Amino acid sequence: MQDWRDNVRRVTPYTPGEQPAGLHVVKLNTNENPYPPAPEVEEALCMAAGEAGMLRRYPDPEARELTSALAAFYELPADRIFVGVGSDDVLAMSFLTFFNGDKPLLFPDITYSFYEVWAGLFHIPFEKIPLDEQFRLRKEDYFRENGGIIFPNPNAPTGIGESLENIEEILRRNPGSVVIVDEAYVDFGAKSAVELTDRYDNLLVVQTFSKSRSLAGVRIGFAVGQPELIGALKNVKYSFNSYTMSRLAIKAGTAALKNRAYFEKTVEKVQATRAQAAAKLREFGFVFEDSQANFLFVTHPVWRAQKLYEDLRQENIYVRYFRQPRIDNYLRITIGTDEEMAKLYDFLAGYKG
Amino acid sequence: MQDWRDNVRRVTPYTPGEQPAGLHVVKLNTNENPYPPAPEVEEALCMAAGEAGMLRRYPDPEARELTSALAAFYELPADRIFVGVGSDDVLAMSFLTFFNGDKPLLFPDITYSFYEVWAGLFHIPFEKIPLDEQFRLRKEDYFRENGGIIFPNPNAPTGIGESLENIEEILRRNPGSVVIVDEAYVDFGAKSAVELTDRYDNLLVVQTFSKSRSLAGVRIGFAVGQPELIGALKNVKYSFNSYTMSRLAIKAGTAALKNRAYFEKTVEKVQATRAQAAAKLREFGFVFEDSQANFLFVTHPVWRAQKLYEDLRQENIYVRYFRQPRIDNYLRITIGTDEEMAKLYDFLAGYKG
Repeated sequence: MQDWRDNVRRVTPYTPGEQPAGLHVVKLNTNENPYPPAPEVEEALCMAAGEAGMLRRYPDPEARELTSALAAFYELPADRIFVGVGSDDVLAMSFLTFFNGDKPLLFPDITYSFYEVWAGLFHIPFEKIPLDEQFRLRKEDYFRENGGIIFPNPNAPTGIGESLENIEEILRRNPGSVVIVDEAYVDFGAKSAVELTDRYDNLLVVQTFSKSRSLAGVRIGFAVGQPELIGALKNVKYSFNSYTMSRLAIKAGTAALKNRAYFEKTVEKVQATRAQAAAKLREFGFVFEDSQANFLFVTHPVWRAQKLYEDLRQENIYVRYFRQPRIDNYLRITIGTDEEMAKLYDFLAGYKG
Repeated sequence: MQDWRDNVRRVTPYTPGEQPAGLHVVKLNTNENPYPPAPEVEEALCMAAGEAGMLRRYPDPEARELTSALAAFYELPADRIFVGVGSDDVLAMSFLTFFNGDKPLLFPDITYSFYEVWAGLFHIPFEKIPLDEQFRLRKEDYFRENGGIIFPNPNAPTGIGESLENIEEILRRNPGSVVIVDEAYVDFGAKSAVELTDRYDNLLVVQTFSKSRSLAGVRIGFAVGQPELIGALKNVKYSFNSYTMSRLAIKAGTAALKNRAYFEKTVEKVQATRAQAAAKLREFGFVFEDSQANFLFVTHPVWRAQKLYEDLRQENIYVRYFRQPRIDNYLRITIGTDEEMAKLYDFLAGYKG
């Protein structure tokens, strides 16, 4: 007899970082920004509260207020921008839209672990390309037959940035594949490939409001590409859900874009704390590459990562540990405020392993 | 040579109703509630504005505040509830999760036109089952081999409700298929199948905050089913996007559930206006079945629907016209406020066809 369970899609879901509540938690585990969003966001929400009656109406399916603000910020025409419910939504839609061939999608073996989950969900063949011993991407590994390419820049969880020259060479060698550069952390120091979208019709650059713009709680991501690529993405998105961006998200996101000075200042503060944290952690004996992101990816010659992760957790200091080949002795530590980082240094100063 | 366009998923997207802006528009075309959400929503947004700093943090991936409030409202355990970005998100995830067989998904020929779009998007085989001459569903048509069943109750765009007895018989005859009852409009008069989820492990009931709760602009939908069904849906959702429900949506949705009296009063007002509108429109010669939804689905023996739609549009009165077989001489008219409906009656009183 037929069982409905036989028709259920079986997946191994992504495991998001813990979201512990509580006032005394030092949360350095999900790469959130330690600073609040631009003050314009609060103003916009106050105004939205005053206009709560309007929430009875559907939002603009094209979220034009937000895409126009993005277009102005990045000096691009609005038809080169796509917005979604966080960059995860943008990336999931992109996998569904662009990776429908028989050849494998290529991505690094050490990278954002959602790529493998999306490939599994949509039954996309894929091949994980090992990073080199220093966790660097070898561009030559991507000069081969494939059904698409995706990698973050800077990479996660390593924090290592890739040069635009290397990215451009990958693009040049793969005119027949969509190449996605996932720039979730790009504002913290790497060079964005957005300018390359002028010349490469197969390039999609994805960014998010969750990190540098301090709006992880509102869920806004976006993609930049040429109109043909963006149009294909929109068609799939409109076949999935016409109204993904709420009126509140459109308002909050648009407001966050109004204050470039605040955005730059916040990024600079994170960078300054990152420089200090790098120096401090090296003093404690940690070994790691320089990071272009808002986190450090560290290992220690003596202290075992998993034990340190657990010991930190006991003290309400949350960092990220990945039980994965090659990186199971590493920790990813988000850059918090100076005060939060000081609690980490204090702990480490007294740590015996 | 390989072309990236060959790997792009080609779709025919859903066409949402127009979203005209402007103060003088009488908007009776997308079944929005004419009344604002409960006052608790404004309060919650004011509070959220005051806590804008918290938006830097990811939301709870399980949106437990909202699912708990729904669980309390419907007197169900929280593990029987799934929430999403509008019921379209819940339905899209459900198609992706439950309809992976080779046998056709069954749904009525006249129904929510997104079903066909989702089936196309996910390459799900489907068969459209004709409603009878009075646009009623014949339960016997669903007693056949299938890979799943979905229909709205009340149906859209007809507004016709189905009895729970018929729904239960469809469930009983299809223990091997997931049956989705899409109750977007159920609060306006049909009987909900939520109680049947106690006894049928293959039943998923989907509802929305966009209609009876006046929150179309915030994007909240939910599903009720047994924990096994909800669990499968969550796994796919977590493989797509861990954080779909923003902090703002969680707050607004939870607030809307706090005021049952307001909710009931709003529904009653819509029902009263619907009764009056039905009487008025019948006076004008329109022919239609009674509606259990917040719209009327009408035809006229003399006036052609498409022309009337266009003539109304000229006067800034927007209703919905579907260029589709069997219903291309019908209009779907959302129940607005009494004042908005009066503008429609005034127009019709002077209409010559």
